Amino acid sequence: MNLEHALTSQLARARIGGRALALASTEQKNQILVEIKHKLFSRADDIIAANQNDLTEARHVGLNNAMLDRLTLDRARITSIARGVETVAALPDPVGETIARWKRPNGLEIIQTRVPIGVVAIIYEARPNVTIDAAILCLKAGNAVVLRGGKEALATNRVLVEVMAEALRSAGLATDCVAFIDTPDREAIQILKRRPDLVDLIIPRGGKSLKAALAGSEVPVLPHFDGICHTYVDRSADLKMAEEICFNAKCSRPSVCNAMETMLVHRAVADKFLPAIAQRMVAAGVELRGDRDTCTIIPGAREATEADWDTEYLDLILAIKVVDSVDEAIDFISRHGSRLADAIVTEDQETARRFEREIDSATVYVNASTRFTDGFEFGFGAETGISTNRLHARGPMGLRELTTYKYVIHGDGQIR
Amino acid sequence: MNLEHALTSQLARARIGGRALALASTEQKNQILVEIKHKLFSRADDIIAANQNDLTEARHVGLNNAMLDRLTLDRARITSIARGVETVAALPDPVGETIARWKRPNGLEIIQTRVPIGVVAIIYEARPNVTIDAAILCLKAGNAVVLRGGKEALATNRVLVEVMAEALRSAGLATDCVAFIDTPDREAIQILKRRPDLVDLIIPRGGKSLKAALAGSEVPVLPHFDGICHTYVDRSADLKMAEEICFNAKCSRPSVCNAMETMLVHRAVADKFLPAIAQRMVAAGVELRGDRDTCTIIPGAREATEADWDTEYLDLILAIKVVDSVDEAIDFISRHGSRLADAIVTEDQETARRFEREIDSATVYVNASTRFTDGFEFGFGAETGISTNRLHARGPMGLRELTTYKYVIHGDGQIR
Repeated sequence: MNLEHALTSQLARARIGGRALALASTEQKNQILVEIKHKLFSRADDIIAANQNDLTEARHVGLNNAMLDRLTLDRARITSIARGVETVAALPDPVGETIARWKRPNGLEIIQTRVPIGVVAIIYEARPNVTIDAAILCLKAGNAVVLRGGKEALATNRVLVEVMAEALRSAGLATDCVAFIDTPDREAIQILKRRPDLVDLIIPRGGKSLKAALAGSEVPVLPHFDGICHTYVDRSADLKMAEEICFNAKCSRPSVCNAMETMLVHRAVADKFLPAIAQRMVAAGVELRGDRDTCTIIPGAREATEADWDTEYLDLILAIKVVDSVDEAIDFISRHGSRLADAIVTEDQETARRFEREIDSATVYVNASTRFTDGFEFGFGAETGISTNRLHARGPMGLRELTTYKYVIHGDGQIR
Repeated sequence: MNLEHALTSQLARARIGGRALALASTEQKNQILVEIKHKLFSRADDIIAANQNDLTEARHVGLNNAMLDRLTLDRARITSIARGVETVAALPDPVGETIARWKRPNGLEIIQTRVPIGVVAIIYEARPNVTIDAAILCLKAGNAVVLRGGKEALATNRVLVEVMAEALRSAGLATDCVAFIDTPDREAIQILKRRPDLVDLIIPRGGKSLKAALAGSEVPVLPHFDGICHTYVDRSADLKMAEEICFNAKCSRPSVCNAMETMLVHRAVADKFLPAIAQRMVAAGVELRGDRDTCTIIPGAREATEADWDTEYLDLILAIKVVDSVDEAIDFISRHGSRLADAIVTEDQETARRFEREIDSATVYVNASTRFTDGFEFGFGAETGISTNRLHARGPMGLRELTTYKYVIHGDGQIR
């Protein structure tokens, strides 16, 4: 009840702060960002000290090395976050952009204009860099932001939010525009999701339990959930290219949503392609799980179960299936994929066109790695996350995806 | 349980039908529409006979005249629906449109392409014309549609859905692309809202009880709910123009969401403006409810309560308030409006720019009636409804708003 009261009042202040921010000039918003950049450097010692406290506590509770690494902020990482802030400051302001403009026969002029969403809540996990990255994107797009980070990074996040509050203050805007939820338990999420009057959008970046916690949300949710990505190696593929693409998609960073989980190989090239890629994958520590045909060609592969086709490993494990045609590949991906990122490797133009047309995923690749599904790689200059939603924003999100629009209509007395 | 089983199977078939429809050519989709138009004429007698049954039943249960009128389909209305189908057939196909296209320094070509949403469910009330209007828009945008109309129009809707099924069949597409829920009780809505795997979007067109029924939906909802619209008559307004605009906004069709519910008048012109508009409104049967200042100027007005400022009358009632400035008007609208459509009447450019910038509504008018918030009036050639949502689509919805996008990325072996 106390949490509910405190959080509601914080959200109400964010709503009011957001109204002023929505009308702020580009210069004012950029000033905030530049101030944040400066203060990241001037307060680096405080940030690192707080981070050391978080790390001590994290080691104490037994976090694994990968998690400890994600949690760590050193001087180099702070510099890299500050460079990101600089990049976003230099991006064009999406707010106020005219999306379309037309005149009606009755003389009405209709102007579709880009405007901020309002109050955006971001729920994320251990990585403290998200605290700055997500907030500055929201601020630049004119949105107030509500941050709910992982409990592991609590001390670090508190200092980072102080840095942003100081920057807001020095630009003459309310510190309420960045609302930080200081009590990272799940109860806060339950309160957030019941307040569509105070929060316009929730962006969750996390796994299955976060998805469950948000079930039945009355606030629209733009999820960043799972990626079960496929690469289909066609009969006409350049097999050397296919090997590079598949190896990259699986091994360059197996723990992320755009990594390949399942590889489909056309029967006509399976005998030639599979042994080579298998050798390379196994050397890199990848466990292979295949259908019967695959296991015949790669004796070291374990036989896959039905569950394998629907699993997001996020690990050095790869499911492999031999298929008879592009149709079978398309059908398989439609049934087992998560519609985030899927690729075909082929030299056949017609097969490529069929695949890109019929695969219903946020990003469909011809002759490239699924790992490019990312805001930076798309050239958005920033990374809000990768939406697994179908509406409003799909795939990599940039500044524009943090806005909506309104229509302004100019008349001279028109009535209907 | 039986309903759940039957409905789930119907939705699953709509999903499959939708996949084929999503890939249908423009010609194929237009052929369906042209067939529907022909069959509306050739089966007009059946439609009218079924409608007579609905009307008999409706009179029997005591529906009021306004409802009976909405329910009625005669030859003239069928012709008008058929003309609407013709119009939509002639509209450009949004599917396949390239929204943006750019090349990355690494040679990747990124193509943002418009694609259908998938399966769209529309929940509406008595008017049987919506059955055709909504379905053809979904079909043209490549979506399968699930229709859940009012129980009053059940017999009529059955024939209309038959007409569409015949047209789909003759174009070689599955009749499942138009799924009609034959049991119009609220239980069907509860099933729909729990199936994000089978339904991609729910568009509810109705009132408060429908809103409540959809609370906690797991399927994204694009609501078409209430409109509390304002017109602010500024001190610099052309008062003759203001009178025409206000009269039109209130009286041309008081039962719709874009009708004016509250009129704000600057104090400097209240003495002059209010008596004239009051006389005209009262003559048209409008009940006036005003703040104290208004009641002093219009002795016949009833004193408004706080509740009046937050009420969507949908009737010949108007709330009136005298304000001291455009700031007060903007603040009042921000607190009491529903962010659908609000207007200012002013000859002052600077005041107009402030109003259109600071009013956060889907449609903001300068010197025109709020009644233009409508797909036809916007020139969309069709009317899917008027979204009161903030994300994905805001305000009048056309064909484009029934689509989403995906990215197709062409490479020649790029890895990350």
